Formats: sequence, structure tokens, C-alpha cells
Amino acid sequence: MSEAVDESFDVIVVGAGAVGENAADRAGRSGLKVMVVERRLVGGECSFYACTPTKAMLRPVHAAHAAQRVRGVAGAHLVPAEVMARRDYWISDLDDSGAVRWLESAGIALVRGTARLVGERLVEVDGTTYRAGAAVVVATGTSPAVPDLPGLRDAKPWTNIEATTSSTVPERLVILGGGVVACETAQIYCALGSRVTLVERGPRLLGRAEPFASSLVAAALAREGVDVRLGVTVTAVSRPEPGGEVTVTLSDGSTVAGDEVMAAMGRTPNTGDLGLDVVGAEVDESGYVVVDDSMRVTSVPGDWLYAVGDVTGRNLLTHMGKYQARVAGDIIAARGAGRATDGPGMRAWADHLGAPQVVFTDPEVSSVGLTEAAARERGMDVRVVNVKMRAASGAGLQADEYEGYAQIVVDESRRVVVGATFVGQDTAEMVHAAGIAVVGEVPLERLWHVVPSFPTMSEIWLRLLEHYGL
Amino acid sequence: MSEAVDESFDVIVVGAGAVGENAADRAGRSGLKVMVVERRLVGGECSFYACTPTKAMLRPVHAAHAAQRVRGVAGAHLVPAEVMARRDYWISDLDDSGAVRWLESAGIALVRGTARLVGERLVEVDGTTYRAGAAVVVATGTSPAVPDLPGLRDAKPWTNIEATTSSTVPERLVILGGGVVACETAQIYCALGSRVTLVERGPRLLGRAEPFASSLVAAALAREGVDVRLGVTVTAVSRPEPGGEVTVTLSDGSTVAGDEVMAAMGRTPNTGDLGLDVVGAEVDESGYVVVDDSMRVTSVPGDWLYAVGDVTGRNLLTHMGKYQARVAGDIIAARGAGRATDGPGMRAWADHLGAPQVVFTDPEVSSVGLTEAAARERGMDVRVVNVKMRAASGAGLQADEYEGYAQIVVDESRRVVVGATFVGQDTAEMVHAAGIAVVGEVPLERLWHVVPSFPTMSEIWLRLLEHYGL
Repeated sequence: MSEAVDESFDVIVVGAGAVGENAADRAGRSGLKVMVVERRLVGGECSFYACTPTKAMLRPVHAAHAAQRVRGVAGAHLVPAEVMARRDYWISDLDDSGAVRWLESAGIALVRGTARLVGERLVEVDGTTYRAGAAVVVATGTSPAVPDLPGLRDAKPWTNIEATTSSTVPERLVILGGGVVACETAQIYCALGSRVTLVERGPRLLGRAEPFASSLVAAALAREGVDVRLGVTVTAVSRPEPGGEVTVTLSDGSTVAGDEVMAAMGRTPNTGDLGLDVVGAEVDESGYVVVDDSMRVTSVPGDWLYAVGDVTGRNLLTHMGKYQARVAGDIIAARGAGRATDGPGMRAWADHLGAPQVVFTDPEVSSVGLTEAAARERGMDVRVVNVKMRAASGAGLQADEYEGYAQIVVDESRRVVVGATFVGQDTAEMVHAAGIAVVGEVPLERLWHVVPSFPTMSEIWLRLLEHYGL
Repeated sequence: MSEAVDESFDVIVVGAGAVGENAADRAGRSGLKVMVVERRLVGGECSFYACTPTKAMLRPVHAAHAAQRVRGVAGAHLVPAEVMARRDYWISDLDDSGAVRWLESAGIALVRGTARLVGERLVEVDGTTYRAGAAVVVATGTSPAVPDLPGLRDAKPWTNIEATTSSTVPERLVILGGGVVACETAQIYCALGSRVTLVERGPRLLGRAEPFASSLVAAALAREGVDVRLGVTVTAVSRPEPGGEVTVTLSDGSTVAGDEVMAAMGRTPNTGDLGLDVVGAEVDESGYVVVDDSMRVTSVPGDWLYAVGDVTGRNLLTHMGKYQARVAGDIIAARGAGRATDGPGMRAWADHLGAPQVVFTDPEVSSVGLTEAAARERGMDVRVVNVKMRAASGAGLQADEYEGYAQIVVDESRRVVVGATFVGQDTAEMVHAAGIAVVGEVPLERLWHVVPSFPTMSEIWLRLLEHYGL
């Protein structure tokens, strides 16, 4: 460990994914000199290996399905090679020079390499030591977890990295896991022509979503030909020939053969080689960095160490990480300018309300706030209203025989919506309205006067409130 | 005029469109005996001749365009006859028996015929006199206005009625007007194969929308082949042979020939033969019935006469009419049950904030609240933020080369959004979020914590607030 400082900045952000970029941008706004460190691609997991390529491939699937579901349109079909080409466009063929140009335009210095905390305000990158006069922000994110199952690591499984960058479509793909990544990947590769088997040890897909959402997604995937196996665990994976056939043995004694196997079994925080122990930063039992709502690492004195995004484990979602990054960046910039650090945007309190999330399967699962179960766990006096999306004419007009449900969870003591889930085609853009209702704590009696436009699908709000009893 | 009462009800609703149905339904909820009168189809203009068939035909156009705009999907195209068939399904081939069954199931009596107010609480329908013990609700709506232009009426022009029910696609269609009906009809028939000319006397389409919305719609229609003529008036229409070629002469001296001409030149309230004068009901200079926020006809004493929907001229939109109907119905039901009539849902105050509206052209124009001009007219200290929709990755992922803009109008004194307009593909479901912000008066500092989900188009909210300066 070297403590001779080679170069100084005001702020050092470790990790230049979307979250780190946001923190760097906001922190630099009051004139602080900012540097980011990135060991892989500037733009990060979300831009190259997660949300963006996934959505780039799912959108053609959705658009084709949507066209197929409207009488009056004919001929819509996917062209798999073009779907891949669209994805390659969105990930810039894994070239991060666009993101690098943005850093340059924002006046943010980029150091490529692997960063390590080596003391208070000190970051070493591959032998060079940098000092951060004001703050260090850890935004290193997570990596796919590949559990120590017999034979799994030797089988060189796909993770989200390969699933979002593969130039070929495996004839048979076995996906281990049943969360968002598993479901979205199943949908994509099934649409591209793979025979997909999905193995989830729990009793349902999307275990954190409302149960009705899990059922609708499972039914839809099954209808498209995905072999969905629930409530079974993997006992062994075997791939005798590198790149050859993979055999997955399950707890029910059955086996599934595939040309690729994918581990979509959760994430693990990128903290291992970061030197958190050197500076006394506390991590929780899963390895996530413990922060408060100002994104300060609470166990480290001196207000110089912050962590934002997935590495905090608060909400493993790009948009929530960026939200946290704005909070931390604004606090650092304010302190740099000698301004107060308790402004209205300087606490990430919305993290605790339940993050908005869209699972871009077809049907989309679009939710915000608390599920019914989560609200009850918090001891709320809860009332749930659930209606078929087709109760709004707008849904049937959007897609013939529209299938889906909408649900709100109401905190009866305040008569405020604390959670909402919309499942169905094209529900993704409906969730922000629910977000405003939840975070804005707009009472039901006021929501009654927010008239939905006819004939949009949003008229489901009227149905929900009518069913509530307004 | 007969005053001998043949039959008595508690509530008589004149007009069984969507608005009248809502008023009847809500008024009947405390046990009042309700009757509706309808001279045409139960379900009304919106269900058979306006929003519903229009959207039924536009949705295939949108879905085909959406598929064509995503690399990875090929082959999507319209099948005009199937588009018409979809519309016929949605208007039940002009059979209202479904709506009649709903009335029966709700215990609402239906009298077919033309109603006329003949005294206090008295309604005559084709010679039979009915007494309404509690209230009469006028929900007669509007009809298309066909101005007294030389030759126009003799040319038997299409109105929205023919445009939504025609079984043929005219080779050449000349549309007079540039409002919502004109623009939506132009889009539909152009997509179905007509050569469409649109003639608007004003300087822009959609005169009440934000100017940037007008420009984007005009450009899109022109790109699809609609001949958009702005700033010219019609001086004469001539159709020598019934059903033959129509010639429209314009103020710039040019002529346009068509196989059909459509008058989309506004609406006129259905009050002429209603007997409003008999009961002393006041109408404004355009013939609309004057009501207060409880939907009571203010000029008639005794709290028995209400008017809801288009006939009030407050907001000529189905959803706002239904909103007003819920208000009136709830007041009537409450009075019937001896309950207070000042509950939180019993004043249609949201009518004054600026109604939500979606123009289902492509691009969609989705707005709520006040335009910049309207906010300034009200003397507000206004700040406007306008960004390209493509500033949100979600837009580009939704459609390659996505075109559109989003705008918010902020009342600086309260730091509250008072208006929002989203123009672009698939913006229809984005407007309800803005509605909740406007009607809920959620301050900008709170909206900052409503994190939009990545990568949805709703992330444009983040861009708007960032550009505002948060």
C-alpha cells in the first residue's frame, strides 16, 4: 500500500456506470474537480449488459406481438438477426467512446483500471495513488452470482453478460433462476427461436412481485413455449465437452439438456477487492455497503465516503441508483460550495417507499411502492383493489382480447395508495402515475378528480377507485 | 303541452350516452327509481360515432406504424377491410342491445323517444308525460355543426357519423376543419388509402393545443400524404350530382375535388327542441346550458334540474362528461338518501384545471392542464420547460428515431405543474401521471423523488425536472 499521493482531485467516483456518471456529474456542478475510475466499459452494466440491450431486444418482440394482437394489421414478424443488430446498435458494439466523450464534455477525468481504497480519501488505481479532497463515491455495482453448485462453474454458464451480447441463438437454453433477468431472457431467446427451459427453485416466478403477476407471466411464457419448472432445485450441472451439451440434473430426478446454461440466480456486490476494510467501511451480511439516506457510509467518520447504486443493496435498479447518485452528488457539490446539505433533494427517502420497476416481459409487470404482503409486513391497515385491465375500454382497444390486471394497495389510515401493480401489454408507462400518487401521497378523494382520458388504458384508475367504493 | 302525469320516477336522465348512463347509474345507487330517455342509440355518440370507433380504427394504424419503426420486426401492414371490421365489432354493428342489457341489469328504465321539458320536474316523451320526483338530468350532448356555407349542406357532407360508420373508403376525401376530429379522420382515411385534403381556416391544426404539437401533427400528416391547407377558408361547395364529385372552392382561389367532403367544423349543443325555455333554463351565447360546479342549472330554482356532459360546454370530452355525471349523480343520490351534498366528490372543480385529452393521431398529442398561453392568460407566473422525447432512452428504445417533445408548464409561485403536453408515439398513457401532478398539486421538489423507471419513456420527467434546474 502506497500513501504517496500522485494526483489530487476533489471527488473520486469509483465505477463509471450510469450511477457513477450521475454522481460525478452532479458533484461537479459547483466547480469541484471530479475523476472517475472504471475497470471495464464506461457506461457500465446497465448500458452494455443489462437494461439497455435487454430492452433493445424485447421491444421488437413487444411490437410484433402488439401488431399481431390488433385486427386490421397483418404480417408482423420478428427477424432474429435484425433484433440482434438492433441490440448491437444500442450497446455500440461494446464500444464506450460515446460515454467517454460525454465525460470529457462534462469535464470529468477518466482513469481506467481497478480502484482500491488505501486510506482516508486515498484511492489507488493500478499502482497510482489519487487523493480526493472532498469525497470518494463508491459506485461499483454488482456482478452476477454464480453459486457453488456441483459442476456449474465448470460448465462456463452464461450470465447476463453473455445473454446480452451473444451473437448466436442457442438451439436449447436452460435458464437457472426465476427473477427478472431469467424471465426477460427466457422471453427474448424463446422469441428468437431457442427452446428455453426455466428452472426456479421457488414456488413462483418473480418472487417479489404480486402473486397474480407471477402467474400471468408464467402462463404467458408457457404459452410461448418456455418450459417453466417451478419448485425444483439444481443438484448438478455437467458439461463434459467445453462448449458442448450441458445436462442439468434437478431435485425431482429429471434432467434437462441444453446447448447453453445461464445462471440468473441473483447478484453479488462488487466490494471484494475494494479495500473497504482498510477504511473501516461496514458491509452487511450479504456484502452490501451500509449507508444512510444521504448515501454516506455511516461507519466511516469524516463525511468523505459515499456509496450509491447496487453496491448499497438498497434497490438494485439503475434508476434508483441514479436517484441515490443525484442525492450524493448534490450533497458533495453543496458542501464544496459551502451551501447547506439538507436541501429537499438531498435525502434518498423514496428508496423506502418501494421502487418503481418494470419487468419487460409480455405481459409487462409494472409496479411501484409496496406489494400487499410488504404493506402488511409493515403493519399497515391495508385494503387491496384488483380489477381486470379490460374493465377499461382502452385496454381492449389497445389489443384485442387484452389480458391483464391492475391492483392498488391502499393504506386505509391515510386513504393513500402505497402500492400499485399493472400487468399487461403496454403497462410500462402507466406506472409513473402510480409513482406520483404514492410518493406524492395524493389522497384517494383527490385522485377521484384526476380524470383519466377516454379511451386510454389509464381509465383503469377510475375502475380501481370505483371498486374501492368512491 | 300536457301536464297530466302518466308515470313517475325519482330521476329522469335525458340522453343515454356514456354520460347519461353514468349519471343514471350513480343517481340510482341510493335506491332512487331512475329512467333514461334516448332518441337514438343507447350508448350515444362516443360509443358509436366518435371516440370508440375512431380509436378502433386508429389503433391498427398505430400498431402497424410502431412495428414498422422497430428494427427487428418486418412485414407489418394494414388490411383496410379488417380495420373496418374491427370498428364494426367495437360499434356492435350499430346495435345497442348490449347497452340496453346493462341498463336493465342496473335497474334503470329506458324510454325511447325525444324528450322535452314541459314544466317543473316534467318531461314529455312523444306524448307521454313523466314526472321526476327528485331531479331531471340533461345529458343530450352535441351534434356536428354544419355551417351555412354556400352549397355545403346541399352537398350532403360527411360528419363524424359517416366518417365512423362508412363501409367504403372514398378515393378522395376533403375534410373541412383542423381540430381533433379532422386530424384523426385524416389519419385514418389516409392510412386506409384515401387521398385526403384537409382545409383549416386558422393558421395551424389543433388550435387549442400547444403550437409545437400542431406543427408535429401537421408535419406527420403531410409526410403520410395528407394535403394540409392552412389559413384558407371555404367559399363554396358544389356537388352537381348527388353522390357525385364534390368541388370545394377556397379563399385563395384554388379548388379541391373530392369524392366525399366532411364537415369537421365544431359542435352545436342539442338543446334546440328540449324545452329549456319552458322551465327558464339559461343557455350561453353558443346555446350551452349554464351550470355550477354541482352541475345544477343555476337559473332554475328548486334544485331539480341538472345538466352534464357536452351540453354544458364545459369540456367537450366523454371523460369529463362522465366526471360531471358522477358529481351530479352522487348529489342526487345523496339528497335522495338524506345525506349531505357537499362530499369531496360532489363538485366538478377539476373541470377548471384543464381537461386531459389525447389526440390519437400519430404522433399522439397527450395533454392535461393549461397550455402556456392559457396559464399566462390567467395571470400566472409561468415557466415552461420543453425537451425532446429522445432525451429519455426509453423513447429511442420504443421506436427507432423516435420523434416528439414533452413540455411542462410550471406555476412558479407554487412550484407546481399546471400543464403538460407529450407529443409522440405511445404518449397516451403518459398523461395520467401529469394529471395526478396537476390535480394533486404535487410540488416540483416532491416530484423529484418520484423516480421514473429505466428505460421507460416516462424518464422524460427526470429530464424535464433537470432542465427546470432541479
